[in-house]
Amino acid sequence: MLMFAQLLSESEIARVHDASLDILENVGVRVRNARAQEIFRARGLVADESENIKLPPAIVADALASVPSTFTFFARDPKYDRTLPQDRPVIMTASSAPNLLDPVTGRERRAYSDDIARIARLVQTLDGFDVFSVATLAEDAPLERFSITRLYPALKNCLKPLRLSASSADDVRQIFQLGALAAGSEQAYRERPFITHHYCPIVSPLAFDLDSTEELIFACEENLPSYGTMVPNGGMSSPYTLLGTLAQGNAEFLAYATLTQMIRPGKELIYSTLPTMADLRRGNYAPGSIENGMLGMGAAQLARLYNVPSAGYLGLTNAKVNDAQSGYEAGMSNVAALLAGCDLFSMGGLLDALMCFDFGKAVTDGEIGLMLKRIARGFEFSEENLSLDVIAETGPAGMFIDKPQTYALMKETMLIPEVADRDPRNRWEKMGALDAQGHALKRVRELFARDHSALLEAEAEARIRAAFPELPAGECRALKDAS
Amino acid sequence: MLMFAQLLSESEIARVHDASLDILENVGVRVRNARAQEIFRARGLVADESENIKLPPAIVADALASVPSTFTFFARDPKYDRTLPQDRPVIMTASSAPNLLDPVTGRERRAYSDDIARIARLVQTLDGFDVFSVATLAEDAPLERFSITRLYPALKNCLKPLRLSASSADDVRQIFQLGALAAGSEQAYRERPFITHHYCPIVSPLAFDLDSTEELIFACEENLPSYGTMVPNGGMSSPYTLLGTLAQGNAEFLAYATLTQMIRPGKELIYSTLPTMADLRRGNYAPGSIENGMLGMGAAQLARLYNVPSAGYLGLTNAKVNDAQSGYEAGMSNVAALLAGCDLFSMGGLLDALMCFDFGKAVTDGEIGLMLKRIARGFEFSEENLSLDVIAETGPAGMFIDKPQTYALMKETMLIPEVADRDPRNRWEKMGALDAQGHALKRVRELFARDHSALLEAEAEARIRAAFPELPAGECRALKDAS
Repeated sequence: MLMFAQLLSESEIARVHDASLDILENVGVRVRNARAQEIFRARGLVADESENIKLPPAIVADALASVPSTFTFFARDPKYDRTLPQDRPVIMTASSAPNLLDPVTGRERRAYSDDIARIARLVQTLDGFDVFSVATLAEDAPLERFSITRLYPALKNCLKPLRLSASSADDVRQIFQLGALAAGSEQAYRERPFITHHYCPIVSPLAFDLDSTEELIFACEENLPSYGTMVPNGGMSSPYTLLGTLAQGNAEFLAYATLTQMIRPGKELIYSTLPTMADLRRGNYAPGSIENGMLGMGAAQLARLYNVPSAGYLGLTNAKVNDAQSGYEAGMSNVAALLAGCDLFSMGGLLDALMCFDFGKAVTDGEIGLMLKRIARGFEFSEENLSLDVIAETGPAGMFIDKPQTYALMKETMLIPEVADRDPRNRWEKMGALDAQGHALKRVRELFARDHSALLEAEAEARIRAAFPELPAGECRALKDAS
Repeated sequence: MLMFAQLLSESEIARVHDASLDILENVGVRVRNARAQEIFRARGLVADESENIKLPPAIVADALASVPSTFTFFARDPKYDRTLPQDRPVIMTASSAPNLLDPVTGRERRAYSDDIARIARLVQTLDGFDVFSVATLAEDAPLERFSITRLYPALKNCLKPLRLSASSADDVRQIFQLGALAAGSEQAYRERPFITHHYCPIVSPLAFDLDSTEELIFACEENLPSYGTMVPNGGMSSPYTLLGTLAQGNAEFLAYATLTQMIRPGKELIYSTLPTMADLRRGNYAPGSIENGMLGMGAAQLARLYNVPSAGYLGLTNAKVNDAQSGYEAGMSNVAALLAGCDLFSMGGLLDALMCFDFGKAVTDGEIGLMLKRIARGFEFSEENLSLDVIAETGPAGMFIDKPQTYALMKETMLIPEVADRDPRNRWEKMGALDAQGHALKRVRELFARDHSALLEAEAEARIRAAFPELPAGECRALKDAS
């Protein structure tokens, strides 16, 4: 049984909670969205001339009390359903990069919907990922069909739960419509809503965003699986201390949670954060910094205080290629947050501070996902695993390789990686001297050496095409230069 | 204040301890070394016909009670002294690789004493490392002067505490002699013994090694700073379960600790482990596996039970070059063990399962060391860092970049890395599009563009040279092709 690490003591974390309540009560939150103002006003909370609303502690406590302690990601195929926290760690791709490294040329370019088809198919094959959050934008997506143009190729190529960040309430409505068409009916979709909506409801510091607040209200009213992420950036939109950024981000989460529970008490949500500190040498956005992992640890501790599932955008990197930096930045923050109790990890596939998807990076991050899952499996304590009989039978200076236990557990004890190379150097050279990215891209080329048939029933496809004839094909085609 | 993560509950860890006592009492340890047999016999413990000795729990408890709770690495310059656990995390290079990647050609070759001079100088400049454990062997070292031929260039180029694995008691004697010559007298050296001896006293399973037991006895008798590491390899020399390997390795530590305390009650030591699971696809040695980090977490928990400083060979890698695998294998196990309470990390500079040193890898691992130290610094809880006044002054939708706090903490809040690139892609391309290894090797080339003068006083050098005229120069010379 895993006991979590804590960077803050119980009394320190209680003080952070009180500080956040203090912020909400005395500084307040800006609410520009008229419908949100109305919801607050119905509880007697009126905006001042700056559109700021002050939230008393009792109102916040009331809201927190109705937030459920679990959150389920549904999939079209129930075997891929994942529920937080019991299925922790749940691993998800990071998402919405405008660019990618072309899998054939290696050069950066804009991402298109046919790229999403391949990315979805790759994620379907990688056991390290539980949820596919649509990894890139799509340059060919028309504005009025932006989100479903991204969603459709994902749906056709991945059976795992899908997650999508939309940009307006109308977007969310279209996504819902596409989901219903895929499921066969609105009712069937509502029983197993396999698309989770995501948004960033707060512009730090402490201001509800206009459009995403619309999304939030719509998703709560319709009871669609959805949650928001807080993204304070220390030195820019929050204090330049980890503790201050944690306290402000927590106030933002509490304001967000309060609004959701006012609309629909009992609405499932997630304590999700992407907190960073700005690198003030040039003001660079630095999600690859270790401070991101530490803030993730603090957030997980607060989420546990509130008994709400926790999530982090973790293990992000500022590296431009999938190199050592990409590896250690991806690995370290994730392990830190895992051991601090984080449940859901938005972590796979992106380089360059969330700007650029890379197929090889998705493969190595998938292995990191498996490593996180292996840590969570732990020591598997049992008298049998203590192996006292095997040790006694073997005796001092004996050998274990020929013992029945060794043979029986050959495929179970260890995580057996596909990318991480364990050959000695001479064999590694004979096999082509591939580095991790080389191994990963080899797997990608093998996967896309052929076309893949759709993972969506023909009838569902026909329904969707009839309603949205302009959607792109969404097929996963072979890469032209793949060998 | 950091609360440690635990993969095993208190009662589970107590059961592991009992299991280890059970192993020592009922299976015993093999003791081939005659002097060690004598030491045990003086306490009434007699070897059977297989030279196995059974250790009753009371004897082990007695020994444990006298192990100090601290361990100090002395340096020639006291500002580099490090004491476990209060200076945790203490970061040390990994050591004794036979080969290196040539810093000019990039090709693997044998390491020589002049390589050690450069490696020592590099480690002296890397703030991530606290202790220099001599990273490679030296092909030019004659057998009868093997260890001091490695030590001398380290001494001439690094002021940090040195650590060396010797191969016999005679080796340890020569090292001691060299230390005394450097310090000016045996007495001066004994006051500040800046070389820590290291050995692997046990051949798993459960057998005291012949030569290293001599070293152990000599180092205890002479009261030289020294400690041993346990290296069970699951599936080969220990059970193929993490728990069984933990229990057996713990029994080995207890046997080792017992022998040291019988020789010198109160002798400082470290609970140090390099536990692995064999990859049974080909029987490959897999120190890069995540199970290594998990075993390190378990070991740290046991060390805490015994109130003994803990150490792990962690963040090792099976990668052959400093790639993404090298990065995430180095990062993940280290963070896991740090958060589980490990104090000392043998982690820097080696590729290919400890076979090969790489200069670039040492630089990136130094940054990982700094990241571990940043995590350990934590949130720096204070009312001031909560920044409630700054948040109130800034208000909803405000800006923090122009606040005095932000300016005051500009260089303190974040770890500012030298290798990890945080530029956006276009600037990164303009600056040469270097990956992490490229950045690291650039730093190495800059450092070795010139000769470096010795960090050893001329008088000390003259004393050493008079006693050991055949030692190589040990100077840190410029790399010929460095620009």
